[in-house]
Amino acid sequence: MVLLADARTNGFCVHPLVHQFSLLQCADRIIIPQGEAHKNMDSCMLIWQQLTELQADRNTVLVNVGGGMVCDLGGFAASVYKRGISFIHIPTTLLAMCDAGIGGKTGIDFQGYKNHLGTFNDAEALYIDPNFLDTLDFRTRKSGIAEMIKHDLLQGGDIWNQTYPAEEQDFYTLQKIRQSMAFKQMIVAQDPRDEHIRQCLNFGHSIGHAIESYALQTEYPLLHGEAIIYGMYYELLLSRNILGLEDSILQQFDDVRRKLFPELQATFTLSQLTPFLLQDKKNNRGLRMSLLKGVGQCEVGVMVSPESLQNLFS
Amino acid sequence: MVLLADARTNGFCVHPLVHQFSLLQCADRIIIPQGEAHKNMDSCMLIWQQLTELQADRNTVLVNVGGGMVCDLGGFAASVYKRGISFIHIPTTLLAMCDAGIGGKTGIDFQGYKNHLGTFNDAEALYIDPNFLDTLDFRTRKSGIAEMIKHDLLQGGDIWNQTYPAEEQDFYTLQKIRQSMAFKQMIVAQDPRDEHIRQCLNFGHSIGHAIESYALQTEYPLLHGEAIIYGMYYELLLSRNILGLEDSILQQFDDVRRKLFPELQATFTLSQLTPFLLQDKKNNRGLRMSLLKGVGQCEVGVMVSPESLQNLFS
Repeated sequence: MVLLADARTNGFCVHPLVHQFSLLQCADRIIIPQGEAHKNMDSCMLIWQQLTELQADRNTVLVNVGGGMVCDLGGFAASVYKRGISFIHIPTTLLAMCDAGIGGKTGIDFQGYKNHLGTFNDAEALYIDPNFLDTLDFRTRKSGIAEMIKHDLLQGGDIWNQTYPAEEQDFYTLQKIRQSMAFKQMIVAQDPRDEHIRQCLNFGHSIGHAIESYALQTEYPLLHGEAIIYGMYYELLLSRNILGLEDSILQQFDDVRRKLFPELQATFTLSQLTPFLLQDKKNNRGLRMSLLKGVGQCEVGVMVSPESLQNLFS
Repeated sequence: MVLLADARTNGFCVHPLVHQFSLLQCADRIIIPQGEAHKNMDSCMLIWQQLTELQADRNTVLVNVGGGMVCDLGGFAASVYKRGISFIHIPTTLLAMCDAGIGGKTGIDFQGYKNHLGTFNDAEALYIDPNFLDTLDFRTRKSGIAEMIKHDLLQGGDIWNQTYPAEEQDFYTLQKIRQSMAFKQMIVAQDPRDEHIRQCLNFGHSIGHAIESYALQTEYPLLHGEAIIYGMYYELLLSRNILGLEDSILQQFDDVRRKLFPELQATFTLSQLTPFLLQDKKNNRGLRMSLLKGVGQCEVGVMVSPESLQNLFS
């Protein structure tokens, strides 16, 4: 058993974990640099080198302790080491609990493109403890709300109602985390390989990923969740313009955004995002996005014309 | 559609192929340096970079034209690009036709260890044309016989008889290639993930891979098939010492080896091979090898003690 963590998680989360699970006490540790910018091939090489030095064999289990970056990267590294060893996720951020930890997508960024290399490979197990959320800085913790809001918009029904948004604190409860995880698991179970219905989870991510990739190159990198808040806003605008989504939903989302993320006020130009939009994995003879016809009603593979995009950013 | 070839294959094989298959005429080409030494992460990065520049998407098919190196490397590059695109193998060497092209193992070498990184992923299709064998240099063509001899030893029955070995030319016929492919396919179908019976195909490869890895670092690198000839010889010795394989079979193999590969007369020491033997993917609490009790009778996961190894090389 080998435990993978980034420098921050190693400091804050690994000690209580090892105290709780005696099996982890004798696990070797691989510590990688912290931050989304290190979700790349260099970090993978470091992991593979250390697994090799530790003489890890096919029966070794890699335990990924950390946020989405550690889960995605560790999952990828494990799934190609000696053609695949088992891995367990112990997500320590809200984002990783509700999103990256579930669904079998592993990946790293490549040449600035998000999750450009990766595999489909399920974790053997997942361990959730909301106490880890207390170890997060304010910005990281809050950014995880973005994917939960996305799940709520996609799920619809009683969840997205007139009293939405909830207070920030409501998102940090085990009950809310469970509900959000269960929705994603239900979708993934129907389409593990992301060929049809799972693509609805990509809502907010075509433009969101492009914004995240662009921002990573600037002096003001965004957290994934923050980029997705922007991405959902732009894709709701597209949903209105292309699929006729009601204006009131766009308005309600904007209220949520202003209440929970008042600090996200940047603007972007199309030329900043175009190179990244063209690399979206969902594209097929033109840009394709998952857009909303209504709350709880997602349409995947919607063709987005250059003109529609132009209108958004002009 | 993107065609992947190494510099040699691009010169000798791609032109007739493109002439034959009109679909390939409009395929973009990625050309990588030739030789086993380039079956590594650098070549993968080159492929991923070029796929990215070509804006290859999830619907792109990678057509791997070349020997085992191109098939293994191209299969690996394809299986992680955007979490996996389809690939087709067009093997141009005897080795790749009878071995690397079949069975869904992809991989690259890492830090001198053979196929240390890889995936299990089937090619969508396989195209065999023995005419490609005429494009090979003498040494490369002949080295492919090694895996065919291995298949014959494992298959047993009428194939491995008193008149074995056949003449070198007999191995280059479509009939013989078909029989050898069919044997491997039959084994792989029973155990695609290499968890039990498929491990018999590893016969000759525990020591063979170690010899290949060691030789790659010297001024006299061996071709894969050549290393496997040595590997089978040593593992037949082990088979006799550990499992009581009849001496006459060892003798017969040695006759085959002297007849077909008289130039392979090197000797190795255990200290040269040990670091590579320890990295074998089949190991599990000690060295494990697939050894023969008799022709057509393979035992997988046989524990090989340090003393047994010592005896071989002293």
